[in-house]
Amino acid sequence: MKNKMITARDVDFAKWFTDVVRVARLVDYSSIKGCDVLEPNGYAIWENIQHVLDEKFKELGHQNVYLPLFIPESLLNKEKEHVAGFAPEVAWVTHGGENKLEERMCVRPTSETLFCNYYANSITSYRDLPKLYNQWCNVVRWEKETRPLMRSREFLWQEGHTLHETSAEAEKEALQMLNVYREFYENYLAIPVVVGKKTEKEKFSGAEYTYTVEALMYNGVSLQSATSHYFGQKFTIPFNITFSNRENKLEHPYQTSWGLSQRSIGGIVMVHSDDNGLVLPPRIAPVKVAIIPIVQDEAITKKAQEIKGILELAKIKTIIDDTDKSAGFKFAEQETKGIPIRIEIGLKEMAQKEMVAVRRDDRSKTSISFATDIAAEITKIMDNMHNDMYQKARLRNEQKTYTCTDLNQVKAVMKNGSGFIKAMWCGSLECELKMKEINGIKARCIPFNQERLANQCVCCGQEAKEMVIWGIQY
Amino acid sequence: MKNKMITARDVDFAKWFTDVVRVARLVDYSSIKGCDVLEPNGYAIWENIQHVLDEKFKELGHQNVYLPLFIPESLLNKEKEHVAGFAPEVAWVTHGGENKLEERMCVRPTSETLFCNYYANSITSYRDLPKLYNQWCNVVRWEKETRPLMRSREFLWQEGHTLHETSAEAEKEALQMLNVYREFYENYLAIPVVVGKKTEKEKFSGAEYTYTVEALMYNGVSLQSATSHYFGQKFTIPFNITFSNRENKLEHPYQTSWGLSQRSIGGIVMVHSDDNGLVLPPRIAPVKVAIIPIVQDEAITKKAQEIKGILELAKIKTIIDDTDKSAGFKFAEQETKGIPIRIEIGLKEMAQKEMVAVRRDDRSKTSISFATDIAAEITKIMDNMHNDMYQKARLRNEQKTYTCTDLNQVKAVMKNGSGFIKAMWCGSLECELKMKEINGIKARCIPFNQERLANQCVCCGQEAKEMVIWGIQY
Repeated sequence: MKNKMITARDVDFAKWFTDVVRVARLVDYSSIKGCDVLEPNGYAIWENIQHVLDEKFKELGHQNVYLPLFIPESLLNKEKEHVAGFAPEVAWVTHGGENKLEERMCVRPTSETLFCNYYANSITSYRDLPKLYNQWCNVVRWEKETRPLMRSREFLWQEGHTLHETSAEAEKEALQMLNVYREFYENYLAIPVVVGKKTEKEKFSGAEYTYTVEALMYNGVSLQSATSHYFGQKFTIPFNITFSNRENKLEHPYQTSWGLSQRSIGGIVMVHSDDNGLVLPPRIAPVKVAIIPIVQDEAITKKAQEIKGILELAKIKTIIDDTDKSAGFKFAEQETKGIPIRIEIGLKEMAQKEMVAVRRDDRSKTSISFATDIAAEITKIMDNMHNDMYQKARLRNEQKTYTCTDLNQVKAVMKNGSGFIKAMWCGSLECELKMKEINGIKARCIPFNQERLANQCVCCGQEAKEMVIWGIQY
Repeated sequence: MKNKMITARDVDFAKWFTDVVRVARLVDYSSIKGCDVLEPNGYAIWENIQHVLDEKFKELGHQNVYLPLFIPESLLNKEKEHVAGFAPEVAWVTHGGENKLEERMCVRPTSETLFCNYYANSITSYRDLPKLYNQWCNVVRWEKETRPLMRSREFLWQEGHTLHETSAEAEKEALQMLNVYREFYENYLAIPVVVGKKTEKEKFSGAEYTYTVEALMYNGVSLQSATSHYFGQKFTIPFNITFSNRENKLEHPYQTSWGLSQRSIGGIVMVHSDDNGLVLPPRIAPVKVAIIPIVQDEAITKKAQEIKGILELAKIKTIIDDTDKSAGFKFAEQETKGIPIRIEIGLKEMAQKEMVAVRRDDRSKTSISFATDIAAEITKIMDNMHNDMYQKARLRNEQKTYTCTDLNQVKAVMKNGSGFIKAMWCGSLECELKMKEINGIKARCIPFNQERLANQCVCCGQEAKEMVIWGIQY
């Protein structure tokens, strides 16, 4: 029953991934490398992600805005670490129509500088704070290596940018938004994650510190799945953003930013999907149920429509595949697209006044009587499916999480594959670079859940400062 | 009671417009001319516009996609009229990071070429048609003259792009989407419009023909408010898009595109607003009701919260202004922002167990008993407000619509102001250019509702072909 258009996942993971996203019609290539088309199936997932997160952001008091696409070079240059991090990979606009621009502009790779420029003119007093803004937009990073959804030159994301009266408030915001992302990954995408701080080397260019949500893909590679940054006054000072505080003195406000991108769709694919195509977590799937009549029959068609009506009334998006293709072909299509539940109705089911619901993830079947509360049954199956998908991924993460206390252990793990490597670290850049050099792994994060695995740094044997989770970066 | 921060509309319309959008915090300038910030109040209107239209598009079978921001120069050049129309005003990207690109790319001014490139690989048979795609995105047109919301270098819009098996189907689609826009303007923005076809000179670069929705602003200037284009095979031939038709022969499909932009927000301002600030049509206003306690009082605050609860249960978005500012100041703020209804509750109202609802557009007041169905009353007031705003604009349009049968009449109208000029036209480009030269007016459209005003062209006196509505273009 294997899909012939999809390379086996265990044979060639990279090829499998590209096959799945292409066959499921999530993404198509354009004529520019790394600038891909999000096709209807892919964009619909993004719309659902937007919908869930946007509601949450607003509930927490954030407002949406839209800032310009272009950043004048002089503006990008205002914060030194920031420009050093981003300038090598921005796209530059030099001409407007026939005319050369007086100052070239880059296409935003992220919008800290634009928000600072905007904020500088819009706050004067502590009464104007906090500013809790977010935008949904496209950004461009001109990377050399590209991969659909995971690393594209243009991508869609949201970026929150906030300003606060005190550092404590801003730090609380950065942590709060990290938790929003963590809960989103766990409760909607069924992806277990590790949360923590980035090391100095891995933090966002220009941040005081960066929180991160890290997820482990099926092949043991780590994905930075969302980040939340605390800037302190690192931008507000060079951008000269000031407010009069409660003591009526001029002060620079404290800043955060946080973002999640379409890469999250790539994460869904790499964590959950299989050799038959896409497996979508039910809470984020655009279409939840595909009803497939096993044979062409008027009574079955009528029943299918009736069930669709019941499900859609309960806001469970449902399609009926009543084309003249074979049932097997229809099953394969539904599986390729990752529709969480397939309802099969044939002559036998009609006679027994029941239908069969088949879960996409494990193909387990449930018979549901026509007479029962169908929407409630389907909801129950989807909830179970969500939990099982989450647990399955969690179990795999556990199996692929290794504790190492010396470099030989690290090498042994990396020889047999990869995953999260928990190991103590002295805190030096030197050891961080060495880990990369020897094993190709980077510090993914300093997790909040610290363990004292040993007293020595895994790399240099000096006194260990903290536990780091290491891994291969997407 | 006039707002001192806003120039009087009848004194300087352009200045009044800028004042209103700035004071209402719809838009802020950025450091790049013509690339503006949509502030929370402005973006929230755009979100509502998106919400209404997106639902309608999907109801009609359209799917959302996202195509790249960049168009390689060679791709833009494929359709000759199209590139001639857009190349003079595109922004060119020449460098990615440190490296010069092999081929420069423009930032999309519109996405026909990108859609054609995408479609070329995704259809093979008539079974793949129609393709009914839409995208919400930013586009860039490097214009010399800019004005917030109305003519900005970067703006937000939606662009629908569809492919069909037959010309009849595509033409039907173009007309259908025109009607979606017309109904949206009338039923949600309370803006009466004229619909018709553009002349050859004014049509979209590369289209067979263009349908347009034209609205008249307070100052008599016309706004092209949305357009819907029929392309026939003008792009599908040069882009070599083919499908095997029902006779199993290769054929080029028939195409449409249609768009509406953030300019519609500018239209709302220019049609409805006044010297006190923004007046928002209630069905598109992000916040519908502002409850203003006249004095600080615990019982009033409690009552305000109770009413807010009732209204929000009925999905009527409500805010309470319980700051310590004066009631007059709060009124002015609510009026500036264009919140459709203000509910005043003071001690007198508490004693009489009623509140006063004040409409933003005409300040008419309604007393509403606490005991009544408050949400139903407010809904009724908003419906009346919508209808009255529409009728007021319609009446003004009638007053500013002039019938002219010779050039002297046109000159007389233009001397006293401007508006829609209905006049017969011979169909020649020469007369169209002359109308522009003499009176600064362009053919806005050849309206569907034709009248035979005379037998001679208003300009040359030759035999008239059709009636045109002329006007000054924003």
